[in-house]
Amino acid sequence: MERWNRGSTVLDELTEDECWEHLGRLPVGRVAWQGEDGLTVVPVNYAVADRRIIVRTAAYTALGRERDGFPVAFQADLVDVEGRAGWSVLVRGQCRHEQWPLPTPDPEVWAPGTRVLQLRIEPHSISGRRLRHH
Amino acid sequence: MERWNRGSTVLDELTEDECWEHLGRLPVGRVAWQGEDGLTVVPVNYAVADRRIIVRTAAYTALGRERDGFPVAFQADLVDVEGRAGWSVLVRGQCRHEQWPLPTPDPEVWAPGTRVLQLRIEPHSISGRRLRHH
Repeated sequence: MERWNRGSTVLDELTEDECWEHLGRLPVGRVAWQGEDGLTVVPVNYAVADRRIIVRTAAYTALGRERDGFPVAFQADLVDVEGRAGWSVLVRGQCRHEQWPLPTPDPEVWAPGTRVLQLRIEPHSISGRRLRHH
Repeated sequence: MERWNRGSTVLDELTEDECWEHLGRLPVGRVAWQGEDGLTVVPVNYAVADRRIIVRTAAYTALGRERDGFPVAFQADLVDVEGRAGWSVLVRGQCRHEQWPLPTPDPEVWAPGTRVLQLRIEPHSISGRRLRHH
């Protein structure tokens, strides 16, 4: 784990294992892609399976329409506002429409509407950082 | 305010005024851009001034090096995990290096290191949604 330190906070680089461990703890992350209307970043419910990110969406959403086979980024973070600390993980990869039968686990989906499309983000890189007080 | 409703949750489209109001409540958002290494999404401390997003960073960061005059997206959200609800705002715009004297307010910066570069995101679009139970 690389570390650098200036002032009262420290920014630690997370290992790949730590990144996946952190991602496994949250129900919501964000998918970013270069869309028809420009750079787009939207929150999504997700699950992690075999070091892939699984997202459920509707075929009519921008994410469902635009992204099969395209590069996307997936980002998740946990921010401790009181403690002025937190961590963030960034996954870059390819977005694929998942075929039936769908692999488990499926993420719990909070948004309304029928979200029959499962997207799988195949990572080609993952990195993360943790900000903490020393 | 447009509204649609399926199942137990409702997704409301936020007005532009509501988007700015929501952005004013948080200390951390995310900047996304198409970087040298691919799509990049990083958390940043930010402030809102005159309907612009103000970010402080270091000249040596990817954000400082790559982004003067380039399109970026800025995204912030508040997720209520217990309540399975939340809101999200997306700003698309142009990233500019701010000239001295710097405008106020300056965001409080949590990360270590000397962050002398102020970035201003000039929005050309803003949109947001709120997910809630009805």
